[in-house]
Amino acid sequence: MKFTHESLHQRVVFASGEAAAGVVAAVQALGRTKVFLIASDREKELADPVQATLEAAGLSVTTHDEVVMHVPVEVAGRARDAAVAAGADVVVSLGGGSTTGLGKAVVMDGSPLAGLPLITVPTTYAGSEATNVWGLTAGETKTTGVDNRVLPASIVYDASLLTSLPGDMTVASGLNALAHSVDAMWGPRADPIDQVLAQEGTRGLAAGLPLVAADSASIDGIEQTLYGAYLSAVAFASAGSGMHHKICHVLGGMFNLPHAQTHAVVLPHVLAFNAPNAPEAERRIAAAFGSATATEGLRALRERLDAPRALKDYGMPEDGIAKALGPIKAAIPANNPTPITDENLTALLQAAWHGDLP
Amino acid sequence: MKFTHESLHQRVVFASGEAAAGVVAAVQALGRTKVFLIASDREKELADPVQATLEAAGLSVTTHDEVVMHVPVEVAGRARDAAVAAGADVVVSLGGGSTTGLGKAVVMDGSPLAGLPLITVPTTYAGSEATNVWGLTAGETKTTGVDNRVLPASIVYDASLLTSLPGDMTVASGLNALAHSVDAMWGPRADPIDQVLAQEGTRGLAAGLPLVAADSASIDGIEQTLYGAYLSAVAFASAGSGMHHKICHVLGGMFNLPHAQTHAVVLPHVLAFNAPNAPEAERRIAAAFGSATATEGLRALRERLDAPRALKDYGMPEDGIAKALGPIKAAIPANNPTPITDENLTALLQAAWHGDLP
Repeated sequence: MKFTHESLHQRVVFASGEAAAGVVAAVQALGRTKVFLIASDREKELADPVQATLEAAGLSVTTHDEVVMHVPVEVAGRARDAAVAAGADVVVSLGGGSTTGLGKAVVMDGSPLAGLPLITVPTTYAGSEATNVWGLTAGETKTTGVDNRVLPASIVYDASLLTSLPGDMTVASGLNALAHSVDAMWGPRADPIDQVLAQEGTRGLAAGLPLVAADSASIDGIEQTLYGAYLSAVAFASAGSGMHHKICHVLGGMFNLPHAQTHAVVLPHVLAFNAPNAPEAERRIAAAFGSATATEGLRALRERLDAPRALKDYGMPEDGIAKALGPIKAAIPANNPTPITDENLTALLQAAWHGDLP
Repeated sequence: MKFTHESLHQRVVFASGEAAAGVVAAVQALGRTKVFLIASDREKELADPVQATLEAAGLSVTTHDEVVMHVPVEVAGRARDAAVAAGADVVVSLGGGSTTGLGKAVVMDGSPLAGLPLITVPTTYAGSEATNVWGLTAGETKTTGVDNRVLPASIVYDASLLTSLPGDMTVASGLNALAHSVDAMWGPRADPIDQVLAQEGTRGLAAGLPLVAADSASIDGIEQTLYGAYLSAVAFASAGSGMHHKICHVLGGMFNLPHAQTHAVVLPHVLAFNAPNAPEAERRIAAAFGSATATEGLRALRERLDAPRALKDYGMPEDGIAKALGPIKAAIPANNPTPITDENLTALLQAAWHGDLP
């Protein structure tokens, strides 16, 4: 037993229907009074009651709605300027991964408001709210980094904000979250505590996703899925990117594939590839699914969710397999449970391309 | 699903045989140079190599060996004065709960060195190193409180430091740790994340304690037990004292009973009392023990460890049951799974007094 585990300071609240009260309590607990509230136009309807409740509590609120995927540096710059002009002493972001990401950009190292506390109210299963990772995009280049100041001080999970998320987006976002917990089992810094959290994250997602797929307004299903996505993100941030995320990163960048679908297609192949040589992961994932084996559990869940199954359906050319092989091989961490060869990696990519399930 | 969970910032290292290197790395990671090293006379042999390695790394070390159980305020005052005189910028404590407690007293609110980082190297299974709780004793009165500044920035767990801990002390200290995880299942602030950590803590203790009881120098056994004790303490600090700790606190104070033995005797009675009305705890504890029921799992573990079984063996008078009833009833949290009556609480105390196992 030899490992180092770092837990991070964060307050997380689960309270369905109580986002507004939760944000007010979180702001007041931090002793702050001037809120910079980030929410895109699309999220305005969900953010308005939060704003109203903050103002009714005597707090000043400045809103900001320019949210763009991957957080372009220009967009981050304008958000920082607006927050400075508002004299903000706390940032609240309400939305999906891009909104959380913009909140992080306002409080990260290098921003004039570096170190301001960030409170997040997630409206998807992205998981960014549970990590100390930021990302900024300049032109075509996305840069990511780690900075404990971007870890939100508080998360307020309110399932009622996700009842209008369409079923297919829930499935895609939820399987993306599941990839966090599966890959956390063998990421480069994976430790037993990460594995415990990842197991519980998997259990929550496996319990919640079928409920939400059947009824996108199921509060119970959304709560379980949010809970699972949160723990999966905590585990993943601690363990670091493993084989699965390296494959998806290379394929996504090379062939401009859709993010969530790529994860959904690749995940069962990586699980079947690693599980035979990762007995602890196999045992924990199977237990989380309540199935005989990890691979069987994921297969059954994917069938219930009608998950995406072939990379060829999302625009990847067949000769891309050979092209991607080298960069993927170079990126997979050395501690991956199953040793990588050109042959077994090619076979995996071929199966994922054709949609031959393991 | 409605709860608030706060995770705390802490770095924890498991590295058997590497305490000295681990402490040096932890001090250097914090950018500190002047170490105030607390270790009692009894722990001197274990602390000397740490001191030597710190000095060899160019760090200044001032040692302090006055450690007293329950941290009397006079003892804390002298430690603070010595640390100020040394110009310390980091505190390292190496020892059991009392040593960790003194380290906390030096860095807590109200001390001239409040906010200095604390690094702990535990030599028992007390678990104090994983909590933000401090305790000070003035005369007969012990005061405890919560202050995030007393949470050690780093813990270095080195199993080789515990190989000389006698077997009976291991069993007592380990069952005390187990009481943390069991009570965390239904403490006043218990949430699903606490329960997951408590389940894994129970699993570690159940795996490690029989190995250490059979061979007190078993590194594998000590590692598993330390790991279980750590997670149990994290869960307990988050969930707060439940029925078990309230009973032991009242009995211990009223009849001056030995701490660890009281916990060991009372625990199976509280588990059997609450488990029928705490299905999630029942499921998780049984899974951790790998047994059909939680109560059976604890019974089997206690048999392997030859655990203490009757309060009458430790100096409690039989008429103490009636005397303790009221104070215990008043102290048990309102959210306890099984409602408390004079009758069922009396029956529990009688069984614990006689040693009639559930």
